[in-house]
Amino acid sequence: MRLYNYIGSANGYKVELALAQLGVEYQRVEIAIFQGEGQRPEFLRRNPVGRVPVLELDDGGCIAESNAILCHLASGTHLIPAAPRDYTRMLSWLFFEQSEIEPVLGSARFWILTGRSAERGAELDRRLAWARKSLAVLDQHLAKNAFLVENQYSIADIAMYAYGHLADDAGIPLAEYPAVHAWCRRVEAQPRYIAGPGAYTADALLTG
Amino acid sequence: MRLYNYIGSANGYKVELALAQLGVEYQRVEIAIFQGEGQRPEFLRRNPVGRVPVLELDDGGCIAESNAILCHLASGTHLIPAAPRDYTRMLSWLFFEQSEIEPVLGSARFWILTGRSAERGAELDRRLAWARKSLAVLDQHLAKNAFLVENQYSIADIAMYAYGHLADDAGIPLAEYPAVHAWCRRVEAQPRYIAGPGAYTADALLTG
Repeated sequence: MRLYNYIGSANGYKVELALAQLGVEYQRVEIAIFQGEGQRPEFLRRNPVGRVPVLELDDGGCIAESNAILCHLASGTHLIPAAPRDYTRMLSWLFFEQSEIEPVLGSARFWILTGRSAERGAELDRRLAWARKSLAVLDQHLAKNAFLVENQYSIADIAMYAYGHLADDAGIPLAEYPAVHAWCRRVEAQPRYIAGPGAYTADALLTG
Repeated sequence: MRLYNYIGSANGYKVELALAQLGVEYQRVEIAIFQGEGQRPEFLRRNPVGRVPVLELDDGGCIAESNAILCHLASGTHLIPAAPRDYTRMLSWLFFEQSEIEPVLGSARFWILTGRSAERGAELDRRLAWARKSLAVLDQHLAKNAFLVENQYSIADIAMYAYGHLADDAGIPLAEYPAVHAWCRRVEAQPRYIAGPGAYTADALLTG
């Protein structure tokens, strides 16, 4: 299989972390988002939305949306809870992540790192306040649970960690959310963990 | 089971539409979001995020996130595609809906209906332009497919329709997206269809 990805995308990092932890081999194709490669016809044929990551299967079928890719890759593995109710809990966290973390903490971080803070003005302040609320919800849950779903490490943790561990980049000290902070260390202690886009500088991210 | 909902929520409407089409009986509890009922301790115990809808099962367990509730309710029914690849496609559309439609078209509609347009300024313009892009992606797909996943009506259609059919409320004429427009009529022709929050005036929505 082939993964179309951009090195600075935390949505893309989720998928690479899951692939690493599942021990799945794949070919990686870098899409230089900031050079417009996401809008080229050959990429739009794979994902009409023009976003990474996209997973292309060996039969040519393409899967978009990072959390849907995680569900596909981890289906039938230890990274997805087997009990139906736990599976539903996992889905709730995956949707929470795409509604209350990625467009909030992720967007705020992106605007700050790429010098768009002034341009976004009041909207940035709203997202930062909202990000703190979301982190507080996570902190409350993780104070009582080792992982998001029934103390079993799953793709919900992988998805949440992708942007969650980068809060400091958005000017929100993760140390203020001690349970989230400790959970990040537990995620990082999982077998075959690999580091994400936090390891790159803003310059490296923008030039691809 | 019991559904905590707010009459003006299109996320909540999704769940009521699915319940109606599945013929599931439930008790409905109205949460007056604009009177702060979503932030009361007894509601936060059910969903720490403070949002509707929340489905409370007979054993007291609660499920948050509208699309996770849909997956739970429709599990094993005709509203979820059986083939694994089609299931993944359904998930991709559900995540697309929560990333590219609900926070875009849904937020723009909400700001316009509740008189927040000036306050949101440039951010509203961004969301409206983004909503048009998302609708164009949908239109392209629905020009070639009767429904979102393999021509089988599913919870992906229910989720997408909830905000999708309300584009006119955000000042985007749905008639400009003829395939989306025609698909809305197909959704409305499904057995046991019920109408959504578009049937209420802004005044009715705000006073609950």
